[in-house]
Amino acid sequence: MKLLRFGEANAEKPGVLDADGNIRDLSGVVGDIAGDTLGAEALAKIAALDLTSLPLVEGNPRIGACVGNVGKFICIGLNYSDHAAEAGMEVPKEPVTFFKATSAICGPNDEIEIPRGSVKTDWEVELGVVIGKHTKYVSEKGALDHVAGYCVVNDLSERDFQLHRSGQWVKGKSADTFGPIGPWLVTRDEVEDPQNLSMYLEVNGHRYQDGSTKTMVFDVAQVISHLSQFMSLQPGDVISTGTPPGVGMGQKPETYLKPGDKMELGIEGLGVQKQVTYAAD
Amino acid sequence: MKLLRFGEANAEKPGVLDADGNIRDLSGVVGDIAGDTLGAEALAKIAALDLTSLPLVEGNPRIGACVGNVGKFICIGLNYSDHAAEAGMEVPKEPVTFFKATSAICGPNDEIEIPRGSVKTDWEVELGVVIGKHTKYVSEKGALDHVAGYCVVNDLSERDFQLHRSGQWVKGKSADTFGPIGPWLVTRDEVEDPQNLSMYLEVNGHRYQDGSTKTMVFDVAQVISHLSQFMSLQPGDVISTGTPPGVGMGQKPETYLKPGDKMELGIEGLGVQKQVTYAAD
Repeated sequence: MKLLRFGEANAEKPGVLDADGNIRDLSGVVGDIAGDTLGAEALAKIAALDLTSLPLVEGNPRIGACVGNVGKFICIGLNYSDHAAEAGMEVPKEPVTFFKATSAICGPNDEIEIPRGSVKTDWEVELGVVIGKHTKYVSEKGALDHVAGYCVVNDLSERDFQLHRSGQWVKGKSADTFGPIGPWLVTRDEVEDPQNLSMYLEVNGHRYQDGSTKTMVFDVAQVISHLSQFMSLQPGDVISTGTPPGVGMGQKPETYLKPGDKMELGIEGLGVQKQVTYAAD
Repeated sequence: MKLLRFGEANAEKPGVLDADGNIRDLSGVVGDIAGDTLGAEALAKIAALDLTSLPLVEGNPRIGACVGNVGKFICIGLNYSDHAAEAGMEVPKEPVTFFKATSAICGPNDEIEIPRGSVKTDWEVELGVVIGKHTKYVSEKGALDHVAGYCVVNDLSERDFQLHRSGQWVKGKSADTFGPIGPWLVTRDEVEDPQNLSMYLEVNGHRYQDGSTKTMVFDVAQVISHLSQFMSLQPGDVISTGTPPGVGMGQKPETYLKPGDKMELGIEGLGVQKQVTYAAD
């Protein structure tokens, strides 16, 4: 299934794509695409519905982040060997982990705000993993059972804030709109191999990133198992698993987003995001 | 006012201390001590109540974290000059910022779990600041208007996970129970000067930390203003503002928590936390 959330920001309704690609309104069935709705039992209940019996959503509503009420927005850094090389950093021995602010989350096609004082706002197409059940001290073997589904994430980053403002990366990862998620949460059963998905990102029509999840250093199962040694994960947590080469910081010369730039990014089977940038007031 | 949350974990009810120190049940007035309840208008409504008219809470219920549904749990590192010295690090030029997992949050007297594989679980008494309204690009002058109140935080840390597991500090800061918050959210009007509060932490009766918020490097207003340049803050976000000297890592020899250890920590006017540690299964 392709689950989504539609409507105005902070008032999104749950929906699902039908066989014709139309949005069907799930708000009579579940409260939100969030928390307990992401568990196997609740997903099975939705999967058993006759989607044609659900209200058809007319028009062209805004699409919100495909998961609501995200508890943790966890990112893995330098998780593609070629990206580590372009960033001038070594491939880590274990997953480099940091958090983005959950307040950075926005819809997949929302406008992206370049923060005040930013000169190095950068893009990163990433495979997002949405957790479906409580996860603590899980093995790699059992880890994928804890996944509700997958989605596209653009892990926007302000490189100067990230690297030169007293240490931790969070300052460069957390601005409002720095975390578009969606358009869809594609349930795990529809993603045959999360380690073999092509992915791309273009700015103003130029393809900067053109990779595949098969070149991840630590795969999804390893990442989940590893994280679960250090913290528990809950339904609705989102893990963004790192980006392939081609970020702005890796260009020669370095290339960053300016107001009015147009991004398009996508991952095979998970949909496409389109964003236009603007400068913060 | 001293606001609090009482009852079983994940099912806490909102409460308030009356003039005699008894808990009065606020659940007929507000849904939770969280989000919009932390705004000036909602707090004024609670302040106008005759507390003796509210149900008296009998017995000795568990006290939960004093804020529910925390969106971001933001920490400032090395924010007391003497602590930076004991950690062998320089006083930073601007607030070092990192996130703890919100899933680490627990009640002030809950048992503390020492994670699997931990050999360096450490304590940090900190002044917690609870945000009361949307905050973005605020000046230092206006920053304290965005504070709902203050509380005690124990920023528990696994030093080996924090410093030697591929970079970012989040791995050492996010284990379950690593963030006791409370017992009370003391509203801003009752804290005359947040930069002049004595604070302490004892383990097994030995006083390791004995400091004051007056030796903070960056004060509360500076921290809020600074953070708001990099991310927006929402009602219910908690900022833990750093710890004075006396953490376990700073002892000679280094001293860490073992199962069965008893912590007691407090901040002037904000109450006391008491915790016993145990080893994760």
